[in-house]
Amino acid sequence: MKKIEHIGIAVKDLNVSNKLFSKLLGVSHYKEEEVLSEHVKTSFFKRGPNKIELLEAIDNEGPIAQFLEKKGEGVHHIAFEVDDIVAEIIRLKKEGFTILNETPKKGADNKLVAFVHPKSSNGVLIELCQDVSKEM
Amino acid sequence: MKKIEHIGIAVKDLNVSNKLFSKLLGVSHYKEEEVLSEHVKTSFFKRGPNKIELLEAIDNEGPIAQFLEKKGEGVHHIAFEVDDIVAEIIRLKKEGFTILNETPKKGADNKLVAFVHPKSSNGVLIELCQDVSKEM
Repeated sequence: MKKIEHIGIAVKDLNVSNKLFSKLLGVSHYKEEEVLSEHVKTSFFKRGPNKIELLEAIDNEGPIAQFLEKKGEGVHHIAFEVDDIVAEIIRLKKEGFTILNETPKKGADNKLVAFVHPKSSNGVLIELCQDVSKEM
Repeated sequence: MKKIEHIGIAVKDLNVSNKLFSKLLGVSHYKEEEVLSEHVKTSFFKRGPNKIELLEAIDNEGPIAQFLEKKGEGVHHIAFEVDDIVAEIIRLKKEGFTILNETPKKGADNKLVAFVHPKSSNGVLIELCQDVSKEM
């Protein structure tokens, strides 16, 4: 695992939160992207080497709608950059972590992603995140 | 606001979580530090330009004990590096954010810190964090 690639924050209204986070961070979001497989619309902010991803549910299905229903707005996941997501999944399984996606899936922002179950990582949902923008 | 300086994670048992996060991140923590004013014992991990701070409550008082009681283990705060914390507090107040410490206080890791109330920032407790290791 390398740097924090991004922090994912669940929000109720992306337009409202885009304005809020542009005030907070001092920069506007640089892109929006829908990930239909995850039932979310996302926006991205960049601060130095890190990104903030805001996630709005686009329907009542999917993990963000569930999270908002259960916990309200707030930090949803922490994503770490990895060079080789398959190797990292194998390493973490050997270390005893529960991997939610044994086969990496396509996430937002040209990434292959896989999640570590928060029950195996102190209540923190961890995303592994490999950049595949050159390959895709 | 610049990069994510660190992510603060509330844990019940620092020794247990130090082992867990060293497996997760692939590195050991590089220091531990007590912050008596905050009633916490902390440990720090480094990944690239970012840090992970684990926070254990050392008694039943203080914000981490309260957080663990109410929400259990998980992400407690996101800290952003700033060059001038006083100027940043003034800027954020003007933008309508609720600042919990109008006068910055000494935090762990040679930092002056101040917090933004999560109610004004989409449920995310934001820490502003200015390095003062050269001045102190």
